[in-house]
Amino acid sequence: MTKPFIQDLVNDMTLDEKLAQLTQLGPYYWGLDDTVDLTGPFKELNIQPQVIESIGSVLNGIGARNVIELQTRHLESSRLKIPLLFMADVIHGYRTILPIPLAMGCSFDLAAIERFAEVAARESAAAGIHLTFSPMTDLVRDPRWGRVMETSGEDPYLNARVTESMVRGYQGTDLKEPGRIAACVKHFAGYGAPEGGREYNTVDMSTGVLREFYLPAYKAAVDAGVAMVMAAFNTIDRIPASGNSKLLRGILREEWGFNGVTIADFNSVNELVPHGAAQDGREAAQKSLAAGLDIEMMSTHYLNHGAALVEEGLLDISLINEAVTRVLELKDALGLFENPFKDADPVADEADKPSPEHLQAARELGASSVVLLKNEGGVLPLKRGMKIGLAGPFATSINVLGGWAGTEKDPAVSLYTGITGKIPAADLLTAMTGELGSMLEGVFDVRDDTEAAYEQLKDCDVILAAVGENQQDTGEGGSKASLRLSANQEKLIHRLKETGKPVITIVFSGRPLELAPVLDASDALVQAWFLGSESGNSIADVLFGDYNPSARLSMSFPYSVGQVPVYYNAYQTGRPYDPQYPNVRYVTRYLDIPNDPLFCFGYGLSYSTFAYSGLTVETAADGRVLASIEVENTSEVTGKETVQLYIRDVTASVVRPCKELKGFRQITLAAHEKQTVSFEITREMLMFYGQDDQLVFEPGDFDIMLGASSSDHSTQRIWIG
Amino acid sequence: MTKPFIQDLVNDMTLDEKLAQLTQLGPYYWGLDDTVDLTGPFKELNIQPQVIESIGSVLNGIGARNVIELQTRHLESSRLKIPLLFMADVIHGYRTILPIPLAMGCSFDLAAIERFAEVAARESAAAGIHLTFSPMTDLVRDPRWGRVMETSGEDPYLNARVTESMVRGYQGTDLKEPGRIAACVKHFAGYGAPEGGREYNTVDMSTGVLREFYLPAYKAAVDAGVAMVMAAFNTIDRIPASGNSKLLRGILREEWGFNGVTIADFNSVNELVPHGAAQDGREAAQKSLAAGLDIEMMSTHYLNHGAALVEEGLLDISLINEAVTRVLELKDALGLFENPFKDADPVADEADKPSPEHLQAARELGASSVVLLKNEGGVLPLKRGMKIGLAGPFATSINVLGGWAGTEKDPAVSLYTGITGKIPAADLLTAMTGELGSMLEGVFDVRDDTEAAYEQLKDCDVILAAVGENQQDTGEGGSKASLRLSANQEKLIHRLKETGKPVITIVFSGRPLELAPVLDASDALVQAWFLGSESGNSIADVLFGDYNPSARLSMSFPYSVGQVPVYYNAYQTGRPYDPQYPNVRYVTRYLDIPNDPLFCFGYGLSYSTFAYSGLTVETAADGRVLASIEVENTSEVTGKETVQLYIRDVTASVVRPCKELKGFRQITLAAHEKQTVSFEITREMLMFYGQDDQLVFEPGDFDIMLGASSSDHSTQRIWIG
Repeated sequence: MTKPFIQDLVNDMTLDEKLAQLTQLGPYYWGLDDTVDLTGPFKELNIQPQVIESIGSVLNGIGARNVIELQTRHLESSRLKIPLLFMADVIHGYRTILPIPLAMGCSFDLAAIERFAEVAARESAAAGIHLTFSPMTDLVRDPRWGRVMETSGEDPYLNARVTESMVRGYQGTDLKEPGRIAACVKHFAGYGAPEGGREYNTVDMSTGVLREFYLPAYKAAVDAGVAMVMAAFNTIDRIPASGNSKLLRGILREEWGFNGVTIADFNSVNELVPHGAAQDGREAAQKSLAAGLDIEMMSTHYLNHGAALVEEGLLDISLINEAVTRVLELKDALGLFENPFKDADPVADEADKPSPEHLQAARELGASSVVLLKNEGGVLPLKRGMKIGLAGPFATSINVLGGWAGTEKDPAVSLYTGITGKIPAADLLTAMTGELGSMLEGVFDVRDDTEAAYEQLKDCDVILAAVGENQQDTGEGGSKASLRLSANQEKLIHRLKETGKPVITIVFSGRPLELAPVLDASDALVQAWFLGSESGNSIADVLFGDYNPSARLSMSFPYSVGQVPVYYNAYQTGRPYDPQYPNVRYVTRYLDIPNDPLFCFGYGLSYSTFAYSGLTVETAADGRVLASIEVENTSEVTGKETVQLYIRDVTASVVRPCKELKGFRQITLAAHEKQTVSFEITREMLMFYGQDDQLVFEPGDFDIMLGASSSDHSTQRIWIG
Repeated sequence: MTKPFIQDLVNDMTLDEKLAQLTQLGPYYWGLDDTVDLTGPFKELNIQPQVIESIGSVLNGIGARNVIELQTRHLESSRLKIPLLFMADVIHGYRTILPIPLAMGCSFDLAAIERFAEVAARESAAAGIHLTFSPMTDLVRDPRWGRVMETSGEDPYLNARVTESMVRGYQGTDLKEPGRIAACVKHFAGYGAPEGGREYNTVDMSTGVLREFYLPAYKAAVDAGVAMVMAAFNTIDRIPASGNSKLLRGILREEWGFNGVTIADFNSVNELVPHGAAQDGREAAQKSLAAGLDIEMMSTHYLNHGAALVEEGLLDISLINEAVTRVLELKDALGLFENPFKDADPVADEADKPSPEHLQAARELGASSVVLLKNEGGVLPLKRGMKIGLAGPFATSINVLGGWAGTEKDPAVSLYTGITGKIPAADLLTAMTGELGSMLEGVFDVRDDTEAAYEQLKDCDVILAAVGENQQDTGEGGSKASLRLSANQEKLIHRLKETGKPVITIVFSGRPLELAPVLDASDALVQAWFLGSESGNSIADVLFGDYNPSARLSMSFPYSVGQVPVYYNAYQTGRPYDPQYPNVRYVTRYLDIPNDPLFCFGYGLSYSTFAYSGLTVETAADGRVLASIEVENTSEVTGKETVQLYIRDVTASVVRPCKELKGFRQITLAAHEKQTVSFEITREMLMFYGQDDQLVFEPGDFDIMLGASSSDHSTQRIWIG
């Protein structure tokens, strides 16, 4: 029920005031400094100065001092004293930069992920931010797309759990609580599937695939009480999401019961015109408002055409009233009518350094996000006392926060700094380092590629090759057709290998890269992503075994770009490849590369080893189906294992995936400790969207798989009715 | 109306006889030699010998003598004397091998394509074949898929016109006519879009995209009276096509009014089981029969389970009766009840050589299918009297018929043979030739990669590099993740370029390869495909200017495999790339390669040059919209130009493609001749499937484009109401 004071406010507002309330602009319209980086095409908005007094929300107007000044001025001039809502892109931390979301997803650690959002919320709140455009929970299968760095990966189940955790971490149980901010899940829907991995490109899929893979994580955010949903840039069923009534009204509100606010992406209402879905801004406004899109971001067609549309009977005023009511309700939920500054705190916001507790959280999550992909002969962990060589463009680089890195006041801890926090600098020899150009500018500019440097490295016990992609080549607008390391980085690794010393390749990237060309030359392979503020410390913790690696890939690493898209939960085909008959031609396969990715979803090594045995799947007397497996740490070191449950519906009315993640559990086992891990197989896990788009359960055979990754598990078939 | 004698036959048949009539088997079940190459997994079919007497049709039981013997025996044992229908894979010719369909599509020459089918039909008919599984009209956008060689490319309009022409060429106006055979369009539907280009992989797309791009060519075949439609291996909307009622009954029969026969692909009814769409053969039979799939190919679930399904009330006998009636009607249409051998003619079939007229047709179509991609400084055509070097694995190879090449009795004319048909052998120096291994076996094994060979080539006036992919790496089961030439072929071209002599690269392939790595090193680039029997003669005709090249690409050549899928008729996006601002980040683009393919749809050079001018688009007094442009041959040689009409619907209720081919016309212009080419813009051209899957016309602005390719044209906007 809408509170009476909000109802009264809506009744008091003029139509122009209502349309302004549904408009979001950048802070520069209020005459403050523009301190933020704009994204997307910026166009003449045709705004009259007095309209600013009624605008509803501000995009990326951040910093406690700015927010307080702007809000104060606004409330002085605003006729109805409706506070502004300050929204911002806080993607992986505000002051303390945490791992990029793709890395964070690899931790499979939901409590740590919730903590990640809490840290980000606390710092953002102090900076005057009321809402963050996070979590981005777009399911991704194509590493060419730059924004895979902003999501937790290719799996609907994992994405849903991560998203819930983030919403809880940002919002808590009451948005009015100090240190809490509202969350906005994005980009609804399917933005993670641009064709060819090319940014902003067409998205096309069947309704079944949309519902089965892409929608669950958005729905999980809604079920977790997310305050806001952002519409995507892309089309779904040939209708841009920002004007898509089936999505924004049909699925989101009617089917899922979402009562919060919807918002456009940057300029996306206006982009109905270049999409060819509206002939001008007026039609764009009509379509978006009719579709149920509440707030227009960085274009002003609601403002400029809304009144005429209502007057001419092309738009029902009730649609506008509903949208305005939702916006005011969100402001009320945040307590802005009582305290329009909420937690804005210039002292905290302008502190010299982020809080040690926050940095510690970043360091820990960073370490638990590093994926150990290969460790031949146990070359890792490094031993103190070793002479260690360190080469490559990321050896000393501080440019590893990852894109969308908040205010970027503080540089990241470099790998060099991280390692020298563990061992004497004299034991660490840096050579053949340099700078990595972006795709636009070139490649790795090796600084001291000399015979002398090479000879020096020969004297080390082990050589670290810190390689990867420029962080600017990831994120929005960061689509790439090649997933390989630059040619001279690949060469560097092969050259280092020629020293005869073990080479440990450490990969900094915002996406799965094509690592097959350096796999054999690397004794160990460490996927270090972009881990934020504490990057070097987190990696050093893993390299020296102070943290025993536990992360698992949340996205498949393709064998080559020609294998894309490759992901673990593909539909069953009529002619599956059988590894027992590798030379059969007429099965689903490539002639030149394997079907399997180089590293699959759920894969990741530890310094411990774990043995699985004794899978049982049984129907209990009470009808519950239970699956159990015994896990033993067969090594001498304590380690964390992520036990994964996959299910295959063998036969159904529609073709089903080969396997689907339906649960996971992280356990820590001491040396030689054993533990039995059990999962209940619930009906909910077995349901799917049938031909008529309804959730159904169909009795039949199911393959229950428990194990260490999507390709390493025991399987038992059971009939469930 | 069903003829009474067919009605009587159906009434007389037992249920088992009916089910056998709906079953297709290979000829070896009749105890004759197996002379054909089988595709797909072959399984124990559980057949009783007496069932063979009632079987309805034979797969690839070819050769006039075989057919006559088998038919004779069959009619002796068959209780109701129903003749067998002999069907076969005649994909690009039976005895005379014509260009692969992808090449043929590049000719844009519909009369020649009709003739192609006539040639194939005449030879097939003489071999006792009654029906060919052609045309394959699957729209393709992914050159990783091996079967792109079997289709005419990426465009629905071109594919539709090619398909109609082929159906006409095969069938004529009366199937009883001598030399005519029935056609079977395949693979219904969407088989050309396997995910990742991986053979038999999942197909997924929205209904809108299916209708807009993929269905039109199948429908064109139906409208042209095609006798049969083959269901695809893949799923559509998560239902395998071979058990997909919405496709086979809904769209094909109810919406399009198709009255002919439907048939499974090889074993595809059985494959409902591995797909997970049927739990066993019995359920597979039930689903396929219920979906309206008339003939089961190379699996026997209809036979083994059909009767039980009817008895248990799980299947209506009327469905079976309808299917049998359609099969008998096709046999009647072919005249088999009067003449069960139709045109089977052992003398003609076993002739020493194909007919000269047929070879001439193949040679001409071959020449008009060769696409001239680059011709720097007019290095082509070659002049008689030149000393010509010839290198590379395809220099002397006769393995260039292309996959699915009929009986393969006769080798192809090699490039060497083709050239020495024009010039004295003394003027042609072959060096650094060799054999090309398949992807499975390796790469180009250069025969004489010596300094002496290299020095000899330096003395030539021009060097031809005959490179490409092994023909076995294309076709069914020929998916590849890499589209590059083998590394040593790329090296060869660069090495040849170092001679300082002009290098003409001639590419033999069944798909668009990634040619960017050899573009700069090639003064001229000739896409020679696999042209069949007359390959070397056709290419030589082009190289020496005896045929002035006229072909245009029917499929885009990607810049790199990381750009796939890339095609000209993509949907409009909200942030299109603007070449005027090449460094803007937040538009749809890659950071590392262009958006445009290396060579686009509709592109191809001639030895003539053509200038376009004076586009006019006007609404005439009678309301017809006419578009005209003047084309001038600005060169000294007669040439053939393919004038192309593209249309963009600027704004609509659903997002529309950037441009769509809606017409083309081939004109031959003498030196300096001018001609005005006009097209009427009809309502039909402007219609599309709206949100409710209905064809609609929406008044509005349309961009009318006339020109030489999909990226080289004049544009004028007009409002059409």
